[in-house]
This record gives sequence, structure tokens and C-alpha cells, in this order.
Amino acid sequence: MAASLPTSIEHAMLGAMAVPRFADVQAAAQAIAPHVQRTPLLRSAALDAIAGGPVWLKAENLQTTGSFKLRGAFNALLALNAEQRARGVVAYSTGNHGQAIAWAARQLGVPATIVMPVDAPKNKIARALAQGAQVVHYDREKQSREDIGMRLLAETGGTLVPPGDHPQVLAAQGTVALEALEDLPAEVRGALGLFAAPCGGGGLMAGCCLALDALSPGARRVAVEPAAFDDTVRSLASGRRESNAAGARTLCDALQAATPAELPFAINQPLLSAAVAVSDDEVARAMRFALEELHLVVEPGGSVALAALLAGKLRLEGRSAVIVLSGGNVDMALLQAVMAKTDA
Amino acid sequence: MAASLPTSIEHAMLGAMAVPRFADVQAAAQAIAPHVQRTPLLRSAALDAIAGGPVWLKAENLQTTGSFKLRGAFNALLALNAEQRARGVVAYSTGNHGQAIAWAARQLGVPATIVMPVDAPKNKIARALAQGAQVVHYDREKQSREDIGMRLLAETGGTLVPPGDHPQVLAAQGTVALEALEDLPAEVRGALGLFAAPCGGGGLMAGCCLALDALSPGARRVAVEPAAFDDTVRSLASGRRESNAAGARTLCDALQAATPAELPFAINQPLLSAAVAVSDDEVARAMRFALEELHLVVEPGGSVALAALLAGKLRLEGRSAVIVLSGGNVDMALLQAVMAKTDA
Repeated sequence: MAASLPTSIEHAMLGAMAVPRFADVQAAAQAIAPHVQRTPLLRSAALDAIAGGPVWLKAENLQTTGSFKLRGAFNALLALNAEQRARGVVAYSTGNHGQAIAWAARQLGVPATIVMPVDAPKNKIARALAQGAQVVHYDREKQSREDIGMRLLAETGGTLVPPGDHPQVLAAQGTVALEALEDLPAEVRGALGLFAAPCGGGGLMAGCCLALDALSPGARRVAVEPAAFDDTVRSLASGRRESNAAGARTLCDALQAATPAELPFAINQPLLSAAVAVSDDEVARAMRFALEELHLVVEPGGSVALAALLAGKLRLEGRSAVIVLSGGNVDMALLQAVMAKTDA
Repeated sequence: MAASLPTSIEHAMLGAMAVPRFADVQAAAQAIAPHVQRTPLLRSAALDAIAGGPVWLKAENLQTTGSFKLRGAFNALLALNAEQRARGVVAYSTGNHGQAIAWAARQLGVPATIVMPVDAPKNKIARALAQGAQVVHYDREKQSREDIGMRLLAETGGTLVPPGDHPQVLAAQGTVALEALEDLPAEVRGALGLFAAPCGGGGLMAGCCLALDALSPGARRVAVEPAAFDDTVRSLASGRRESNAAGARTLCDALQAATPAELPFAINQPLLSAAVAVSDDEVARAMRFALEELHLVVEPGGSVALAALLAGKLRLEGRSAVIVLSGGNVDMALLQAVMAKTDA
């Protein structure tokens, strides 16, 4: 059985932030239910045969705005008071978080400014603009998105909503696991062997760990990262937040965090069973499997946990698994390039 | 309110076949439930905005074997007695029905022979073989699949399972509508404005008409066909089963029936509200919309109802709709060709 979150952390503050608990995940589920899709938990006989055990796929690529990020965005915005809402919100994001904030802000009537790298997928930029958000670009290698965000906040008096280092965001991402566990057949829920999800800054996995620790403590909890951004793999080994090499490259635009975010790591460090990394080739193979066998479009970063399963890096040994497909926003040009590749 | 099935037809025999009734759809639902996916009913804010009303997508592209055909295949095979099962089954099919029969036969331990055109999508042929079925090829323009099927049946004493002209098959295809209606929010179910599904031989639409007539009689029931295979459009107009031109071509390999099948047409003629046709360009556009906006792979024939909605051929006028995405089996080469096309 996996270790439970120590009580000292469970009630802790991390700087100014209260570390969320499972009750916060449950509260988030109630708050966001009217605003987000309860995404389906899909099966595939072909995948079961390859994986060596029954697999349930939590299809957050079918979420409104195309990723799980909408959950955190709504929960963060719903927590603002009327005065904060009027002054607006700022988000810096590689794409999916920005898109989610833009959508949630539009629905709730809150002005939103999104700080995006100039090399973010074009469809993600276009969609944020289409939602009525203001988009401010930055150069990923020369500028700090945090500096730009801070300048905007000083100008507007608005509220920053970070993609993971935020209690309401992190708690809401845990509803991905909460819904999956609720929707599993009862006999599977009690005996779940594995829960694996993509990991960038770590907010999705941290929120899910809170739900799993409470409801399915026997399941292994595995974070999956791109090989060039394996900061959580190395941070779990060293016991402190490690950074990725400057200029590192990956197909997974959604998972390019420089280092584990502070608040998620405070939860992931005690609660994760393991973290594993996958290569770009393994990601491309998983995306093709999703298209051909599952009939789903999954973006590179959204398919890393599936990639790890297909590459034999997650062993089921007959036990059941939940694999999160965390997003589906991929430029058609990139998708065509991935399809044109053939397996080595 | 749409016309109800006249009592004279409701209890009729058509040749040796009893015309199925709604009770047969309900019985099929019970019989096949352990063997098929209850596919999700998906939403898309982008689609709602285009359609002018709330749309629910019944995602049979996520069904096991990649299409709704598995429903009819299981229901037909489950109706066989032990002796019939031992002698095996024969199916002629452009692909999805054959694949479904191969899968269901394997699960139930029934020998299966699939008669397929040599130009069927390669992935469909490969999958039937992988399921352990025997595959017999024929030339679509020179040979009759019916003749080949009859010869095989004479040799084996087996049972032919046609793709639509079969009471158990037709009744089971109606579970697509039954599930959709059950899964709609109660307030939508009672006021559903439109149900549209792809139509080849007409079995899917006929089964669905039985469920709709019983549970949601106010909803318009619209069959959607490829422009070059608009036999149901013309047959509804003339009142008799019209044929398509020899050598007609369409992107929709799954919808190349020569004429409406007899048993489905006996139901569709009184119960359909209308039939509409879509061009290959409209189909390709719908497939790209499915990839980019819905994050779903839908095969050409599976996307014709969505294509009709996107092309403005199905008017919602604020009322709600169920659109069936009936299959997802598409060669990656064809999918790439569809993606490479740009809108005119």
C-alpha cells in the first residue's frame, strides 16, 4: 500500500498557499460540475490485450477547450469575489491553461489576459483570441513569462492564475481522478492497480494523488513525463525540485515546465509511487495508436501516459489501470507529421 | 408530430422475415449489453454554436470494432441455436459489418467467413483476419457478393448474416437511439427536435426509427446519405426502392449499398421524416471538424450526418438534436488525404 500524506503536510501552508486536501477536491467537483464535461471513461479491447490487463482511459481530450485545464480554471475563477472578478485575471500558459482561462473567464464575465510563448501551437493562440481574451506574446528563450505577468498585474490590479501552483487549480485537477474512480465498476475501483497521468508542472498528478490516496490507496500512482523534461523523475530521486536543461526540446508542448511546481511537488513527493519518462518516438507511436485503434485525437503531451503503457514502461500484471489522456489540442500540421512517421 | 408505424406493418411479415417492433429493440438491448460498449453521448460547444441548438453526438466510432455494426452482429449470433453456431456464419460486407461479425463470432466461438470486396480499406481486411475469420474476396464490379455468399452457405450449411436485411440485426441497431434517448437529460429527451444518422442499406436508421417512434415521437428522423448513393432520398420520393447508378463513387466506403434493403425500407418509408444527401467535400470537411474540434476520428460514412448538420442541411432552430457518428474505421492514408485537402 502506498504511503499516505503525512499529517504535518496535510495541514501545512506552503508560503501563502494552503496545501489542498481531498476535501478540496470534493468541493471543486461540486463547484465546477455545471461548467465542465464529465468526460467518458473509455475501453479498448486492443489496448487491454497489449497492456496485459483491463485499462480505462479518462478522455480529457474530449473536455470543453480540449484539456483537463478547464477544471482548474473554473475553480480558480469561481473562488474570486466580485471586485477581483471585475479587475480581471492574467494567465501565463503554453496553451491549454491559457485557453481554459479564456473560456472560463468569458463564461463568467471576467476580463482575461493570456501570456503565451510566440511558438505556442497556432490553434491554441487562435482559440484564446476567439474567446475574447487579450493575448500577450513572449519569447520562450529570452523573456520570463513571470516578469511579463507581474507587469500586467501591476498595471491592472488583476489576479494571476498560475497553471498548477495554486490551491484551487490543483484541487480541481484532482476531479479527473475522482470522476474516474466514481465511474469505474465497483469491483474494479476497490482493486485498481495503477493510475498514470501526464506530468508537466505536476498539478494534474498532485490533485489526482489526493483523490487516489483517499479512495484507492492501493493503486500505484505514476507521473509520466517527456524524456527531455524528466524533472519529476529526477526530483523524486534527489528529494528536491530539479530543473530541466535550458533549450531542451520535446514534441510535448504542453509539458515544457522548467521544474516541478512548488505546491504540486509538496504533494507529489510523498504520494507518487514513481515517475517515468517517454521519448518523442514513443509519444508519436501512442498518438498513432490513439488515431487508429481508439479513434481519438490526443495531443503529444496528453498521450505520454498511454505512450508509457504501450512502451512497456507501466506493468499491469493482470491488474486494472486508469490512464489519463489529458488533452487533444494539436495543430493539424503536427498531427500530419506524426502520422507520416513510421515506426522504426 | 411524426406519423406512427401503421398497425398493419407493425405486425407484418416481409417474405420470411417478421418486421421488428420496438419490443425487439428493447430485447436486443438486454441481449447485447454484456458484449458491446455503451458509447458516450458527447457535447461540443463549438458544434452547438454552429448548429444553432444543443447537439448530442452518439459516438459509435468509439464502439468495439469501431462501428455500431457490432450491435447487430452480436444480436444475430446470440439468436442462433447450438447446431447453427457449430456450422458457422457467413457475412458479406464492405467492412464494418464483416469486422463486427468476425469479432462477435470469435467471442462466441462461432466459425465465421467474411466476403469482402478487394478494394475494402486495408485495415478492415487486416482486422477481420486478425479476429480469426476466413476472408473471401470479390471484385465489386464483376462479381455479386450474394452469389459468393450463397455458394459458401451451400458448402458449409452455415447461416448468412446480412448487414441490414435481418430482423435481429435491424432491431439491435436501434439500441443506438435507445441508449442515446436514455442518456439524454430528461428535459431534452421529451423535447428532442431531430435525430439524424448515416444511411447505407438503412438498417441503422430503421432500428433507430422504432425506438424514436416509441420514445420521442416528436423528433424529426432524418437519414443522411452520400450524394452518389442517395437511393433513400429518391425512394422516399417515389415510394419504391430506387437503385444507385452502376459505378457510382463516394468517399463513404461504408455506405455503398446499391438500393435500400427491403426490411429496413419497410420501416423507414412510413417512419422517416426525410432523407438528405451530402457531397464528398462536405464529408471531408466534417471529418476535419471532428479531428480538430471534437478530437475524434470518424470515418467518411460515419460522418455524413455531422456533415449535413455542418453544411446547414439540417435546421435545429433552437431545438436539440442527436447526431450519430456511426464508425471510425479509416485507413491512415485516406485520413491524411482528407486532412491535406483545404476548404474551397
